[in-house]
Amino acid sequence: MADAAAVFGAWPDDADVAVALTFDVDGEAAWLAEGPEYDRRLTLLSQARFGPERGLGRILGLLAELDIRGTFYVPGHTADHHPGAVAAIVAAGHEVGHHGYLHRGTDGLDAGSQRAELEDGLAALDRHQIRPAGYRSPGWELSPETLAMLAELGFCYDSSLMADDRPYWLAGGTASLLELPGHWSLCDWPYFGWTPYHGGLLADPAAVERIWLEEYESARQDRRPITYTMHPEAIGRGYLLRMLRQVITGMLSVGRPWFATHAEMAALANRPASPAAPAAGRNLTDQA
Amino acid sequence: MADAAAVFGAWPDDADVAVALTFDVDGEAAWLAEGPEYDRRLTLLSQARFGPERGLGRILGLLAELDIRGTFYVPGHTADHHPGAVAAIVAAGHEVGHHGYLHRGTDGLDAGSQRAELEDGLAALDRHQIRPAGYRSPGWELSPETLAMLAELGFCYDSSLMADDRPYWLAGGTASLLELPGHWSLCDWPYFGWTPYHGGLLADPAAVERIWLEEYESARQDRRPITYTMHPEAIGRGYLLRMLRQVITGMLSVGRPWFATHAEMAALANRPASPAAPAAGRNLTDQA
Amino acid sequence: MADAAAVFGAWPDDADVAVALTFDVDGEAAWLAEGPEYDRRLTLLSQARFGPERGLGRILGLLAELDIRGTFYVPGHTADHHPGAVAAIVAAGHEVGHHGYLHRGTDGLDAGSQRAELEDGLAALDRHQIRPAGYRSPGWELSPETLAMLAELGFCYDSSLMADDRPYWLAGGTASLLELPGHWSLCDWPYFGWTPYHGGLLADPAAVERIWLEEYESARQDRRPITYTMHPEAIGRGYLLRMLRQVITGMLSVGRPWFATHAEMAALANRPASPAAPAAGRNLTDQA
Amino acid sequence: MADAAAVFGAWPDDADVAVALTFDVDGEAAWLAEGPEYDRRLTLLSQARFGPERGLGRILGLLAELDIRGTFYVPGHTADHHPGAVAAIVAAGHEVGHHGYLHRGTDGLDAGSQRAELEDGLAALDRHQIRPAGYRSPGWELSPETLAMLAELGFCYDSSLMADDRPYWLAGGTASLLELPGHWSLCDWPYFGWTPYHGGLLADPAAVERIWLEEYESARQDRRPITYTMHPEAIGRGYLLRMLRQVITGMLSVGRPWFATHAEMAALANRPASPAAPAAGRNLTDQA
Repeated sequence: MADAAAVFGAWPDDADVAVALTFDVDGEAAWLAEGPEYDRRLTLLSQARFGPERGLGRILGLLAELDIRGTFYVPGHTADHHPGAVAAIVAAGHEVGHHGYLHRGTDGLDAGSQRAELEDGLAALDRHQIRPAGYRSPGWELSPETLAMLAELGFCYDSSLMADDRPYWLAGGTASLLELPGHWSLCDWPYFGWTPYHGGLLADPAAVERIWLEEYESARQDRRPITYTMHPEAIGRGYLLRMLRQVITGMLSVGRPWFATHAEMAALANRPASPAAPAAGRNLTDQA
Repeated sequence: MADAAAVFGAWPDDADVAVALTFDVDGEAAWLAEGPEYDRRLTLLSQARFGPERGLGRILGLLAELDIRGTFYVPGHTADHHPGAVAAIVAAGHEVGHHGYLHRGTDGLDAGSQRAELEDGLAALDRHQIRPAGYRSPGWELSPETLAMLAELGFCYDSSLMADDRPYWLAGGTASLLELPGHWSLCDWPYFGWTPYHGGLLADPAAVERIWLEEYESARQDRRPITYTMHPEAIGRGYLLRMLRQVITGMLSVGRPWFATHAEMAALANRPASPAAPAAGRNLTDQA
Repeated sequence: MADAAAVFGAWPDDADVAVALTFDVDGEAAWLAEGPEYDRRLTLLSQARFGPERGLGRILGLLAELDIRGTFYVPGHTADHHPGAVAAIVAAGHEVGHHGYLHRGTDGLDAGSQRAELEDGLAALDRHQIRPAGYRSPGWELSPETLAMLAELGFCYDSSLMADDRPYWLAGGTASLLELPGHWSLCDWPYFGWTPYHGGLLADPAAVERIWLEEYESARQDRRPITYTMHPEAIGRGYLLRMLRQVITGMLSVGRPWFATHAEMAALANRPASPAAPAAGRNLTDQA
Repeated sequence: MADAAAVFGAWPDDADVAVALTFDVDGEAAWLAEGPEYDRRLTLLSQARFGPERGLGRILGLLAELDIRGTFYVPGHTADHHPGAVAAIVAAGHEVGHHGYLHRGTDGLDAGSQRAELEDGLAALDRHQIRPAGYRSPGWELSPETLAMLAELGFCYDSSLMADDRPYWLAGGTASLLELPGHWSLCDWPYFGWTPYHGGLLADPAAVERIWLEEYESARQDRRPITYTMHPEAIGRGYLLRMLRQVITGMLSVGRPWFATHAEMAALANRPASPAAPAAGRNLTDQA
């Protein structure tokens, strides 16, 4: 892998760390993708709909108050069924990224269905006049086929892989894709994503606040960007938005963060002199 | 969705928040509904029976001491097998709501069985001279058929859905049903509902106390009502009732809560001028 | 149920609470009972063997230092394969209770196999000249058949049910059995019983210390006895024995506990004037 | 079992405790061993690759700064696919141990496949001119066949079993193998090893820091060695490396630890006068 630290030079405005607040606006899609029986589970679906219909508004309010722009990964299904949500995101100046159509896990689909997920998602966003620069795989699982299609479809960056905590270039044929990695420990879902069908944790927000600020300190020392991943149906609950506010306040109190969208970060990245050679081995597909 | 904030005007007595303490008195029903093998599991059944036979008394004592009225959702099976529990709830002036008959998950039943669960539950409560105004689905899962039957059977409100954390009106044919939403994060079960057959968490009560009070603060700022959902077999354990007392004490120390039953809240709701149009789409069934 | 509070009068020595520290010395039995594939899992089996071979010694040392007698529930298989462990327990003046033979869950066995578990367990303890007065079901699950056999075999008390947190009398034909209830929240297993095959939690001991002391406070206020259930392979780890020491120290600092074996507690119980009538209903088997 | 405390005499340099920091550099092997479907899960594989490619560098940096030598258990697959990682470990003076080839669980393989895992792992390490003195079973599960092969292949010690928290001798035919036991509570995986396919916890590092230091105190009082087990993909995350630094700092502030590799510990062990007799019973295979 190329030296990931070299992907970026100095941050704007003498910032000592770059922070991406990202939100996956899954809505009902993630559950409907799991099987026809989810169709009748009005409570679970309402729990999911809380995201675009209620949690999102809280998030947009906080970001507006703090003058922060974020990146919202929106499945096509959400864009089709919650058009007002997408309009509000765009109107507030945030970035919209691609997040599949029905939030189907790419590794469980054949190549044709993977392509359909990508194209249907693009079409849905296009109905909102959105051409996404970046992609995040639903459920954070990316197959080799979808990765190849991303390069082919002209995406600038991906936010699905985790081989480093610094951005890195992915080789893909003649083009190169920037990887802006997230991680489960910086995602709200493993801590707060409880449903009766999938279990999970309902963690202590005080602990998550500490974890997220500790990782922020680590990123500050490394002068690397850091991506937080959240879901409006989780982080948009009243008690968790209070935690998010405290996380951001904590960041501001100890550092000089540059809050940026993924697209803004990608625009600053130093492209390697020559495209990295395609990865040699099967398991090295995302290695540059 | 109609503006949920507009469902209510000012609270009584200059309160700045309305708080519903609700209790699902499941007893043995929830386990017996899972399959015939549960019938022989005397330990699990005794763990469940702790709710109506021991935990309930503690809860009623605390509410009496603090002069708070709560809402108790009682499956018909509990009403039939623990008649003294229901009598004690009623005698203390609390509200009783419908919670199915054998606590069967509505989404796993055909329409006829769903109707039977509702009618059998009504009949069991009727044997206690109770006509419930509200319903909460067992296991917090509601199917479209049961939702339609609720309106048809004349229920005033439901407490099964989670699309908002503010009450909202549900469209259902010619009638309207008020949704008084709860949420898993404000329920004791994901934190304290451990069994050897289902796993789960046994969380730190100090963390749950913080979470529940943080959400209370959020509700106070929003001036929205907030519903807590508890189970006598969990919250009725000695160490957890101490936590509940501290939660209520904490509420009283920072705000002016109006502790009310769900029925009292529903009585204050401003009914929309005209019934909301039936929801257009399948996944929007509970949207008004 | 008879008034559980009336089962006991005053505690000895002006104590304000009675505390039973109980230990299930499962050893390898619990895993061998799960299936033949466990036979080859030397790591899991060694993890289990840590209980009788290492953790037990630590526990016996702490109890000796604090001059506390406890109750040790020992499966027959443990007694046969770790004879020195049983000898050490007996030599230190502790009580030994019945805990099945191979720690088989009673509800998964037919009546004949349940009887064999009981009789084989009795025979194994008898080889140590132990006649147990009490029984705790393996994995805390008790079937109606085993419950009936307990009375028939002359056991004085059981510690498998949870319908109350105060001791209560169980009806069983002509005899009566005292129930000395435990609970999962007062057991170390849900907090610290992690294996790669069964998952589980590895909780914060500081939280468990708080929980166990909170329940102690509740028991003190109720003047009821309280049973803690532990496993030498869990509580016997160095860091957890330090927690247990702090729990006991905390108890001594705020109350006047009478630390007693289950047999000592049972000897103090007021037997009801006439044996309770056999329970009428299926689900009321353990109700007196 | 022989008196485990007698395995060691005094530690070097008047230390009051011996501490082994060990790291399992699993890389992609653990997932590829689970089934062919993992081959296409680029996100999960990248999450795993974070270990050798990013987390490892952080760990090596911390150990160099603190002048500590550790033991790195490396599957053959990792050695073949991340040769630079192994070279960096060796260049820094750390020990490399055997950890299977594809991280296959030994108890699920027949004897021939177990032998292949051992021989292929040896061959892979040999390509780095490494002859490992010790072995740790993948996923911490050891079968009788692999245990017998370890002695036959001339390994000096094993770190797979948990029957004691003090080192102990294992009988194996004519040779003896030293067991240097670890435990799940002293491993990062049960606390921080979350994946969407396997769930798990994402625990509060503040709690884990307390647990690891409490066990250290227990080990200091016992004057026994203690083994911590970590995975670069987990402990190598920024926020967790900060925790590890605090754990080590905490150790240094209260005791006089001797940080040593497993091989250094094994070299100090007092070999029993005569080889222990082969264990008599099936379940006592690892008992000496």
